[in-house]
Amino acid sequence: MLEDLKRQVYEANILLPKYELVTFTWGNVSAIDESRRYVVIKPSGVEYDKMTIEDMVVLDLEGNVVEGKLNPSSDTPTHLEVYRNYDNIWGIVHTHSKWATIMAQGRMDIPALGTTHGDYFYGDIPCTRLMSREEIMGNYELETGKLIVETFKERNIDPMETPAILVADHGPFAFGKSAHDAVYNAVVLEEVAFMAWHNIVIHRSERMQQVLLDKHYLRKHGKNAYYGQGKRVIT
Amino acid sequence: MLEDLKRQVYEANILLPKYELVTFTWGNVSAIDESRRYVVIKPSGVEYDKMTIEDMVVLDLEGNVVEGKLNPSSDTPTHLEVYRNYDNIWGIVHTHSKWATIMAQGRMDIPALGTTHGDYFYGDIPCTRLMSREEIMGNYELETGKLIVETFKERNIDPMETPAILVADHGPFAFGKSAHDAVYNAVVLEEVAFMAWHNIVIHRSERMQQVLLDKHYLRKHGKNAYYGQGKRVIT
Amino acid sequence: MLEDLKRQVYEANILLPKYELVTFTWGNVSAIDESRRYVVIKPSGVEYDKMTIEDMVVLDLEGNVVEGKLNPSSDTPTHLEVYRNYDNIWGIVHTHSKWATIMAQGRMDIPALGTTHGDYFYGDIPCTRLMSREEIMGNYELETGKLIVETFKERNIDPMETPAILVADHGPFAFGKSAHDAVYNAVVLEEVAFMAWHNIVIHRSERMQQVLLDKHYLRKHGKNAYYGQGKRVIT
Amino acid sequence: MLEDLKRQVYEANILLPKYELVTFTWGNVSAIDESRRYVVIKPSGVEYDKMTIEDMVVLDLEGNVVEGKLNPSSDTPTHLEVYRNYDNIWGIVHTHSKWATIMAQGRMDIPALGTTHGDYFYGDIPCTRLMSREEIMGNYELETGKLIVETFKERNIDPMETPAILVADHGPFAFGKSAHDAVYNAVVLEEVAFMAWHNIVIHRSERMQQVLLDKHYLRKHGKNAYYGQGKRVIT
Repeated sequence: MLEDLKRQVYEANILLPKYELVTFTWGNVSAIDESRRYVVIKPSGVEYDKMTIEDMVVLDLEGNVVEGKLNPSSDTPTHLEVYRNYDNIWGIVHTHSKWATIMAQGRMDIPALGTTHGDYFYGDIPCTRLMSREEIMGNYELETGKLIVETFKERNIDPMETPAILVADHGPFAFGKSAHDAVYNAVVLEEVAFMAWHNIVIHRSERMQQVLLDKHYLRKHGKNAYYGQGKRVIT
Repeated sequence: MLEDLKRQVYEANILLPKYELVTFTWGNVSAIDESRRYVVIKPSGVEYDKMTIEDMVVLDLEGNVVEGKLNPSSDTPTHLEVYRNYDNIWGIVHTHSKWATIMAQGRMDIPALGTTHGDYFYGDIPCTRLMSREEIMGNYELETGKLIVETFKERNIDPMETPAILVADHGPFAFGKSAHDAVYNAVVLEEVAFMAWHNIVIHRSERMQQVLLDKHYLRKHGKNAYYGQGKRVIT
Repeated sequence: MLEDLKRQVYEANILLPKYELVTFTWGNVSAIDESRRYVVIKPSGVEYDKMTIEDMVVLDLEGNVVEGKLNPSSDTPTHLEVYRNYDNIWGIVHTHSKWATIMAQGRMDIPALGTTHGDYFYGDIPCTRLMSREEIMGNYELETGKLIVETFKERNIDPMETPAILVADHGPFAFGKSAHDAVYNAVVLEEVAFMAWHNIVIHRSERMQQVLLDKHYLRKHGKNAYYGQGKRVIT
Repeated sequence: MLEDLKRQVYEANILLPKYELVTFTWGNVSAIDESRRYVVIKPSGVEYDKMTIEDMVVLDLEGNVVEGKLNPSSDTPTHLEVYRNYDNIWGIVHTHSKWATIMAQGRMDIPALGTTHGDYFYGDIPCTRLMSREEIMGNYELETGKLIVETFKERNIDPMETPAILVADHGPFAFGKSAHDAVYNAVVLEEVAFMAWHNIVIHRSERMQQVLLDKHYLRKHGKNAYYGQGKRVIT
């Protein structure tokens, strides 16, 4: 079932080592099908160069495995919680990519410092609060998903306008219109985290003007966008 | 038309990922023809590994597309404004290369700290002021070009002696005697931005002596140059 | 003799340049056989791309060469001392990998700052004290081994729970259930050293919560682990 | 003439891009023949991937071209001055490698912080003073050579015990028993410059103990060396 989506999720996972977002098996990509009933996700702890399309795991939104012989990613409950709350999210990526993780360990938002950021993220990329002892010792991965949703809601951020978040002391999640689109945003996230860190170090990290952020975000997104040829691709 | 120039511009664009100056489609190279009537530029938002020579767009200096099926780079009006003002510039590159962009986000000139800088840039590489709300909300890309020209003129810099500039909170532009030469300068720009950042961090960024800058710049440029075999190449 | 172990040690050594943990010949991997009577180790100063399986040197635990034409790594006495003291260690790696060495030269522990660290190291990665003049001028490599053992014991650390150590002003050693597992841990060590350094620079290096460290370490290790498919691999 | 030496110098030059010590043509390697009458050096401004063995230029110690159609490196007078003063130097490398150049631009010695440094350099790697106006406007490249010799002599450093130097606001030179050996030392120089910079940033750059420096340097060099299999190689 969902052969095309399984292939997409497989290919998106394979992009993680290509774009140097993961070491070993430390990352996972998922996508949700058009009916929003099924989620396809990478199996847990399988190496990228040994993984096949058939290793992808299909679950329903409650987390029951519908197809697949391997255990799904241990982060699956986080993905599912996000899909249940945002029906405009169609792909999710979790990695421990270096620069975003440094900012997550620093428990800091990534400030919008320039047009590279503004082209893809409509404002600062938020970092969550620390989790409580109860959340950590309870259903940890589910609570991680709840914390992501809480953070976006409390800060009035639409995760498809600012499609990434840092989980404090852990690492980043990125979102997209598809598995590939989420990986695209994860790559941009890493790049803006890299640049923000370097601006912070030299005490030169004043936020960009709101009007410049509006201009750049809106020339690429929304109904008046005029950048590109009408679609965004990644390979 | 302009088949040779289209090939040159195509090849120069392909050098951007080779020299790791771009992520995805975030860069563009143009060149102007010998008559200075036509500019060839990369199409907007097309991936480097899918782009062909025939995808290059030809425009006149007023921005009318003369040949090509795709939209030209959204930064085209910036390129045209620079060509209209400097008839010694024959190639232009715009990227969001990491280190130059960090300096642009820091709203800082790149100081001339050593002979690597002095071999190619005859003084500090300037950073523009921030743009006004009116400039951003008006014809933004054209205003970016006007700001570049304004900055060079106010600071009495010949852009072929210091062939790069940082647009504040945005990123770098580099210039050259051809599309390839502009890419060459973009590579050097990234390298000197990298080194300058690292000298600034350790509070060791005193400017080089003017006499050393003169010596190094002039041994490579001008009529008494004695470096090399008489021409500079890049592949 | 020990053909299979020699092959494993050879392959694990070859992983060091692959994972960019070594420059030239600056690293060595060893493993101990099931009987814990023989250790196989890389020969001294041989380049990775010229080395063969047959170049591996077999020694007994007292350091007598049992098989092999080449000199064993000059660090062999350090490896042997560790094997003699910890019968749960089956593989050892020594490198001068950049980030771990920077921390070693800084004479600093690597603090546990996030879940990437906690997934593999159950607490801060210790740095030894400096060696005394007598230790350095005596049987230096043996004394290095004794210092490693002393450091783990004084700090009540089980080297299989926190499978790496920094020798002050020198560099890292990593440990594992096999030669490959030790290399795996050496890669993770380098990654967490990289991130910790960057957090320290921006004064954002507060330790992770103990409960989060417990959660992450124990979801990957021990009898209730639920990450992965039941085994860890590296190629 | 000197076909074997020309091949060695050619191959050593080709190692510079392999070890990422140069961008474009910014580096040169030379060697002196057994009679110490002839020096072979890279031609000026020729790209590494187009260069052939026959492009190597042969000069006598006074700088007269004895063989070769191309201009020798513009830095040739620096190399010759060093060969004239130190008959234990057989190969010289000049680059603008990033990390050594940052330290040169910082006008700082590279302090001996750990055993990676001590394995190859018997103490701090010196940085020269700035050159005077007269030196720069005079026979600049010759004066650079004189400054290198002056610095080693004033500081009582044998350039074969500490086989590298930083020319202030310019970049590094490295020395060796052959062209290849000099490149080897240039690679190590870059690595120790990288690590020293990072230790300086976190205010953790105390010099290593002299006894540890003695131990490491002498276990690899001199008549009681016991590291390796008796020779050092690089490819």
